[in-house]
Amino acid sequence: MNHTLLCDFYELTMSNGYFKNGLSNKITYFDVFFRSVPDGGGYAVFAGLEQICEYIQKLQFTDDDIDFLRNKGIFDEGFLSYLKDFKFTGDIYAVPEGTPIFPHEPVITVRAPAIEAQLIETFLLLQFNHQSLIATKASRIVRASQGRTVLEFGSRRAQGADGATIGARAAFIGGCKGTACTLTDRLFGVPAGGTMAHSWVQMFDSEYEAFKTYCESYPHGATLLVDTYNTLKSGVPNAIKVFKEVLVPQGITDFAIRLDSGDISYLSKKARKMLDDAGLSCCKITASNSLDEYLIRDLMMQDAKIDTFGVGERLITASSSPVFGGVYKLAAVEENGVIVPKIKVSENIGKITNPHFKKVYRIFDKESGKAIADYICIHDEIIDETKPLQIFDQFAVWKTKTIENFVAKELQVPVFRNGKLVYKLPEIEEIQQYCAEQLDTLWDEVKRFENPHSYYVDLSVKLWKKKTEMLERLKG
Amino acid sequence: MNHTLLCDFYELTMSNGYFKNGLSNKITYFDVFFRSVPDGGGYAVFAGLEQICEYIQKLQFTDDDIDFLRNKGIFDEGFLSYLKDFKFTGDIYAVPEGTPIFPHEPVITVRAPAIEAQLIETFLLLQFNHQSLIATKASRIVRASQGRTVLEFGSRRAQGADGATIGARAAFIGGCKGTACTLTDRLFGVPAGGTMAHSWVQMFDSEYEAFKTYCESYPHGATLLVDTYNTLKSGVPNAIKVFKEVLVPQGITDFAIRLDSGDISYLSKKARKMLDDAGLSCCKITASNSLDEYLIRDLMMQDAKIDTFGVGERLITASSSPVFGGVYKLAAVEENGVIVPKIKVSENIGKITNPHFKKVYRIFDKESGKAIADYICIHDEIIDETKPLQIFDQFAVWKTKTIENFVAKELQVPVFRNGKLVYKLPEIEEIQQYCAEQLDTLWDEVKRFENPHSYYVDLSVKLWKKKTEMLERLKG
Repeated sequence: MNHTLLCDFYELTMSNGYFKNGLSNKITYFDVFFRSVPDGGGYAVFAGLEQICEYIQKLQFTDDDIDFLRNKGIFDEGFLSYLKDFKFTGDIYAVPEGTPIFPHEPVITVRAPAIEAQLIETFLLLQFNHQSLIATKASRIVRASQGRTVLEFGSRRAQGADGATIGARAAFIGGCKGTACTLTDRLFGVPAGGTMAHSWVQMFDSEYEAFKTYCESYPHGATLLVDTYNTLKSGVPNAIKVFKEVLVPQGITDFAIRLDSGDISYLSKKARKMLDDAGLSCCKITASNSLDEYLIRDLMMQDAKIDTFGVGERLITASSSPVFGGVYKLAAVEENGVIVPKIKVSENIGKITNPHFKKVYRIFDKESGKAIADYICIHDEIIDETKPLQIFDQFAVWKTKTIENFVAKELQVPVFRNGKLVYKLPEIEEIQQYCAEQLDTLWDEVKRFENPHSYYVDLSVKLWKKKTEMLERLKG
Repeated sequence: MNHTLLCDFYELTMSNGYFKNGLSNKITYFDVFFRSVPDGGGYAVFAGLEQICEYIQKLQFTDDDIDFLRNKGIFDEGFLSYLKDFKFTGDIYAVPEGTPIFPHEPVITVRAPAIEAQLIETFLLLQFNHQSLIATKASRIVRASQGRTVLEFGSRRAQGADGATIGARAAFIGGCKGTACTLTDRLFGVPAGGTMAHSWVQMFDSEYEAFKTYCESYPHGATLLVDTYNTLKSGVPNAIKVFKEVLVPQGITDFAIRLDSGDISYLSKKARKMLDDAGLSCCKITASNSLDEYLIRDLMMQDAKIDTFGVGERLITASSSPVFGGVYKLAAVEENGVIVPKIKVSENIGKITNPHFKKVYRIFDKESGKAIADYICIHDEIIDETKPLQIFDQFAVWKTKTIENFVAKELQVPVFRNGKLVYKLPEIEEIQQYCAEQLDTLWDEVKRFENPHSYYVDLSVKLWKKKTEMLERLKG
């Protein structure tokens, strides 16, 4: 699928306008950033870079696309010819996938001629927003489940096919161990698995026969769905009978039951006892049914006996907070080779952009390895790790903190240089692993669900002065 | 894109199990239905059938898909050979796209050999859920805006590329007049349009120059974004100046301004007055910025001066209620050519399925043309319109209503017959038009946002008796 036309129509009309007015080749700098963490959380997880890289490499207007645009009757023939040979020739910097990210810092920065930078706006934002949304939600759910396995089960309730497949990819980055979606396995190598539907049980004359046939077909890893008729009176007893008749004699121990309705906490404890009393302490219990981080936390607090959580609609749509509000804002242009910062003001001070071509450092405490703050500075600033670093709140400048004995790590890496991919995309397992490691560098206070500590994202003095000066000038 | 593998992995393991156990060709009946309307609304709008038809026609496992499955090490070679020639050979019945639908009634019914019916579960649900979700949300938003134009602007916040493109298709069905998404126009003929981004304004040395250049490039339909610096002090005055200098002298009257931040109600009234005082009463006002049906209703109550609403993230993700809970449940199987109804019980009575191969009538009052109730009966029942029809609440059987002077219209139409498409898919404008007409048949009480009247969806006596008898038998 060519997604070149997956742009807002105004990007094409603006580009045509740039073309006609000699602005095509004006070098621009755009930042992708977001303003608040979904669910009132303290951190987000960045995902989507791989699909952005693919998109950039495949950018191309076909002849049919050009004809389609020509028929709109508003585009210059010169511009349409330009689109025929359109490709991305700029630079892109981004933080690696799986990195914890925070509001107002540039996650992706694009340096490119105006038209190129403008035309990729929608798709970059869409991928950034969608995958970061789901990776962040998955990270919360995995955190709530305290080491138990979390599987992504939501394809049928996803918002479109990509919502399902790419959503499951992002969920894996956030820490899910697998997915129900076969296509996600095929496309991205996220392991697909599953249990059985109620229809399997209903297809046979009895639940016992359905279970028996299943265990005979899949002796290893069989997970029997026990709630089609009556969980405790029929489902669990039939499962126990079949496990003992079919699997135990073969020495098989990797089997499970799945609870999909009713009072999961109560049923899991009752079922656990029935299984243990039958000598089947090896049998695992999987639970599903509209779970999310809050319900899982409650189940854990009730000491529910669950080994695996299957999480569907509330993960794949991030239903409690389904929008990741990433934006794409002009930060600078070049005039005769000089970078001229640009700003977008707003009555809402949180919506005023940070101008200029910037870079972001993450400051880690050398001793604990914990992340202390992110530090946004102008692109050519360099942090001297041998000297104390004073950071301050840009909206309350008297609030300062001096950091010593730290390591400063640049967050963004070069991804495209002159239109060429210069970044080696990691394997999905590496991204998942990296995400887990990076989350370990955050204090628990940043990661709690309610009223998390606001992680510091501060500006360098030089950047803050530049911003303040620009705002003063605009006021005048 | 081939979506054949966009299935839950358990559909493949169950199918392999059916294959090995001689159940491949057992004829099954599955219903797609939903249990509650998002946002606590009184009706939903069905959408997604066109994409389901495409999917069914394209179903095919490639050699690579088969190899991928073989490598899982759990599938029978016989089953893999079967998949090589897999195609859908069954029947599908569905209500037309754009139809208002209600909980618990079969919207789509599949009659097919077990494996075929099982493998299409996820994709059918995904399309049904996603598009019905967005069409329903759009319908609410369009309703709130009382005849003003509503445009879909949400691609960048959509959950994936299909979320954007197919979501905008569904939004059009629900009543939006257009979209910002160029690809949706290209693929589905939904008219794409747009205004300008803040970056356009920032690219020029002044707002005035940015506006002037834009109006010179696009004299017709120019919509100027007036909030980059200061809406009332800079944006609106500059827009007025440019309209008068560039467009009015040419006799052009189709231009507008767009408000995208701040107090939209206040700003729209101030801007309206400034425009009117400048003799530009022809100038329209477009508003955007995280709008939804509730905010639009509030703006209307405040008499905000808005002609067009651009609705983004809250529409394209249906953010206040982002899951449409459609399910796919076995309703019957055939044994030696006889239809044997099947039921799924639950402790929650609302989750007990309606068994059997069924059909649904919508009962319209002959005089007013209004829809009175939907009536679910067994497939071979026929309503006699010449006689009074008594309906009753299946969970409170003493609550009855006798309907006279009515027209009974079957809701589902044949879509596939023996695997062949037998339904002429309507054009998207026809679907939008049909949806609007059908919504007009619903009483306002069903369509209000808070505590809507519960539209009657009742069972025939014959179906109710069959269901009750099955539940009694299971209890015993």
